[in-house]
Amino acid sequence: MARINEHYQKLAAGYLFPEIGRRTRAFAESNPDAAIIRLGIGDVTLPLAPAIVDAMRRAAEEMGTPDGVHGYAPDQGYEFLLDAIREHDFATRGVELSRDEIFVSDGSKQDSGNIQEIFGADCRVAVTDPVYPVYVDTNVMAGRTGGADAEGHYEGILYLPATEANGFAPGPPDQAVELAYLCSPNNPTGTVAPRETLAQWVAWARDCGAVLIYDAAYDAFIQDPALPRSIYEIDGARECAIEMRSFSKRAGFTGVRCAYTVVPGELHGTTAAGERVPIRALWARRQATKFNGVPYIVQRGAEAVYSPEGRKQTAEQIAYYMENARRLREGLGGAGFTVFGGEHAPYIWLRTPEGLGSWDFFDALLEKTHVVGTPGAGFGPAGEGYFRLSAFNSRENVDEAIGRISGAF
Amino acid sequence: MARINEHYQKLAAGYLFPEIGRRTRAFAESNPDAAIIRLGIGDVTLPLAPAIVDAMRRAAEEMGTPDGVHGYAPDQGYEFLLDAIREHDFATRGVELSRDEIFVSDGSKQDSGNIQEIFGADCRVAVTDPVYPVYVDTNVMAGRTGGADAEGHYEGILYLPATEANGFAPGPPDQAVELAYLCSPNNPTGTVAPRETLAQWVAWARDCGAVLIYDAAYDAFIQDPALPRSIYEIDGARECAIEMRSFSKRAGFTGVRCAYTVVPGELHGTTAAGERVPIRALWARRQATKFNGVPYIVQRGAEAVYSPEGRKQTAEQIAYYMENARRLREGLGGAGFTVFGGEHAPYIWLRTPEGLGSWDFFDALLEKTHVVGTPGAGFGPAGEGYFRLSAFNSRENVDEAIGRISGAF
Repeated sequence: MARINEHYQKLAAGYLFPEIGRRTRAFAESNPDAAIIRLGIGDVTLPLAPAIVDAMRRAAEEMGTPDGVHGYAPDQGYEFLLDAIREHDFATRGVELSRDEIFVSDGSKQDSGNIQEIFGADCRVAVTDPVYPVYVDTNVMAGRTGGADAEGHYEGILYLPATEANGFAPGPPDQAVELAYLCSPNNPTGTVAPRETLAQWVAWARDCGAVLIYDAAYDAFIQDPALPRSIYEIDGARECAIEMRSFSKRAGFTGVRCAYTVVPGELHGTTAAGERVPIRALWARRQATKFNGVPYIVQRGAEAVYSPEGRKQTAEQIAYYMENARRLREGLGGAGFTVFGGEHAPYIWLRTPEGLGSWDFFDALLEKTHVVGTPGAGFGPAGEGYFRLSAFNSRENVDEAIGRISGAF
Repeated sequence: MARINEHYQKLAAGYLFPEIGRRTRAFAESNPDAAIIRLGIGDVTLPLAPAIVDAMRRAAEEMGTPDGVHGYAPDQGYEFLLDAIREHDFATRGVELSRDEIFVSDGSKQDSGNIQEIFGADCRVAVTDPVYPVYVDTNVMAGRTGGADAEGHYEGILYLPATEANGFAPGPPDQAVELAYLCSPNNPTGTVAPRETLAQWVAWARDCGAVLIYDAAYDAFIQDPALPRSIYEIDGARECAIEMRSFSKRAGFTGVRCAYTVVPGELHGTTAAGERVPIRALWARRQATKFNGVPYIVQRGAEAVYSPEGRKQTAEQIAYYMENARRLREGLGGAGFTVFGGEHAPYIWLRTPEGLGSWDFFDALLEKTHVVGTPGAGFGPAGEGYFRLSAFNSRENVDEAIGRISGAF
C-alpha cells in the first residue's frame, strides 16, 4: 500500500475555519430560529463594484468571439494587469518593479502556502504568534517541523509572541533563521507594523541572510499614508523580501480569486555548495510547472480595480468596512472590552472577558449572542485569551452584534 | 543565506512549452513576414460556447448585487457543479460518486502536479514514456528522484516505454511501485488505453498496493462509446485510483480554468507503522490549506457545459477539432508520414521523417513550413523520433499546415 506523507499526521485535527463552520452549523441545527451574525471568517459581504462587474461581463462576452477568445494566460499574468499593479500599487509609493518580478496568482493563501516549496527541506522558519495558520501548516506538511507540543507549538519553528507589550508587532529574533513570515496589517491581530519595526526586520534579514515572506494582503486598509504599504518602501528590502498582495479584501475578490506575489531580481538563495541562485527563477519554474494562470475574465476584473471608477468604488467599500471596524472598536471598548486593531485593518482583536479561554468564549458568544467570531488560540498559543472579530458584514449586523455582545458580558 | 530546494537544480533547463515559445519567438523576430501556424501547445482556438458565455455573464452580474454576491466558495466546489458532474460524467457511465469524493479545482495540471504531496517522500513512481512533463517534474522537485541521465531519465523513476509495439499503451510493470501515472486519451501520443489494458492496471495496482493517478483530461474526445471514459468503469478501481478531469479541452476552458479530481472513499494509503489512512482525507486537508476554491463565475460557466445547449455546443466544438485531427491524420498519412493517434484524442503523433531527431524536426518544420509542433523528445526519451501535432486550430490553418508539410518533406 502506498505510503502517505506522514507529516500530515502532525497537523491539528482541522484547519481552523472548517472547525468554526462545523460548530456554527451544529449550533444552527439545534437553534433553527437563531439569527446568527457571522464575524468569524474574513469574507467580504458587499457586492462587487460596478466597474469590476462591467469589466468581467465584457471579458466574458469577448471570450465568446473568434477574435476575443483567450486561451492559456501568460505564465506570470497579462501585461495590462502587471502594468496596472506596477503603476498604482508601487510607483505611487516610490517603488519601481519590472514586469518579470510580479507573479499574478489565484490567491495569497496559495502563494504563502506554496512559497516554502522552493526552499530547502531543512530551512529554519520563524513566525509571529498568533499567526495565519497557512504559514505554519504548509511547513508542517513539508516536513520542516516535529510534532506539536501541549501548547500547540511545532518543534523546530521559532515563534515570536505578538503581545500587548510589543504592540502585537514583534521585532526580529536574536538568532538567525532562513525564512520569516510577516503579515502587516496583521491577520489576526488587526495591528500594523510601524516603519521602524519593518526596518529592523530588513536589517536583520540582510545581516543573517534570511528571506522575509511579507504578506500585505490587507494593505488597502491602511489609513495613515505615512505607514508603509509595501516592504519595498524600506531600503534594502529588495535583497531580502518576497511580498504578497491580494484583491480579495481590497476589492471583494474572495469569490473571484486574484492576487500577486513580488520576487525581486536581487533576492538570492544558496545551494549547500555555496552557489547563489536567484529566487525569482525558482518561483518562475515552480509556477510554470504547477500553475496555469488566472482566468482572463478575472484578470480583466482585477485591472478594473485600478480604473478611476474602480479605485473610487473600492475605496468606498473599504471605508464602509473601516467604519464597521471603528464601531466595533469603540462600541465594544465602551462596553468594557479591551480591544486592539481595527484602525488600519478590518480585524478587531479583543481580550476575552473574565479570563475565558478563546474557544470557551467562542462557544459562549455563539450561545448567548448568536455571534460567530474566531478564537485567538486558533491562530497559535499566544492567541489564547484573545478573539478576532471581522468588520466584513453589513452595518446593520455589526451594530446588532455590538448591542448583543455589550449586553451579554 | 537561505538554502534553496536543490532538487530544482536537477530539472532540465526549462519546462517544455516555454522552450517552444522561445524558439518560435526567435524565429518570428528573424522572419517577421512568416505566417506561423501554431500546432504546438494544446491550446483551444474556438470561442467559448454561447451557453457558457451567458452563464458567466449572468454570474458576473449576480456578483454585483447584494443578494447575489458570492465570497469564498465551498472547499470542494458548489453543489450545483458537483451534482452536474456526478450526473453527466459518471452516472451516465454507470459510476456512482458522492459529492465529497469530487474536488473542483483550477486545473488538471495543478492537481496532477500537487497530488504527489500527500504521498511519502520515498514513494517509488512509475510513468509511461513519453509523458506529460508535469508528472515527472513535480516528483523531481519533491526530491523523489536523483538526477537525469544522458537520455533524460531521472534516477529512481520507473519509465514504461509507450511504443508502436504496444500501441503506445503499455501495461503495468512486473514490479511494485507506489504511484503510477496514466493518461488516457494520452497526451502526447493521442492514443487511448483499451479496456483490457486498464483492467490489467487496476488488477496490478490492487495486487501491489499502488495508487493509479488517472489523468482523463481528454476523455471528451473519445469517439467510441465502448471505450471507458472513467477508470471507475473498471471493477475495483475505487480501491486504487484517483481520476482527474478537465474542462480545458472539452469546453475551451484553457483561459477560464476549471477541472476536478475524484478521490474515492475506499482509497487508502498507509503509515510506516501500518496504519491505514484514507487518501480522500489527506487531499481534503491539502486543498483546504493550500487552495481557496474556483471562482463562482467560473463554476457557473462549468455548470453550463452540462446544460442541454452547453452539451450540444461543446459537442460541436469537439467534432470540429476531431475533424481537424482526421484531416491531419489522413492528410499527413497520405503524404507518406507514419501517423498515430487522433482518433479519440486531439493529438497526432507522427514518426519524424528521415530519422530526424525530434528537436531537429521541430527546427526544420518551423524553418521550411512555418508550422510549430511539439518535439516528442520533450515528453521523454521514448518520444525521440516522434512529433506531436495538435488539432486545436482553425480548419483553414490545419488544411494550410497539411499542405505545407506534405510538400516540404
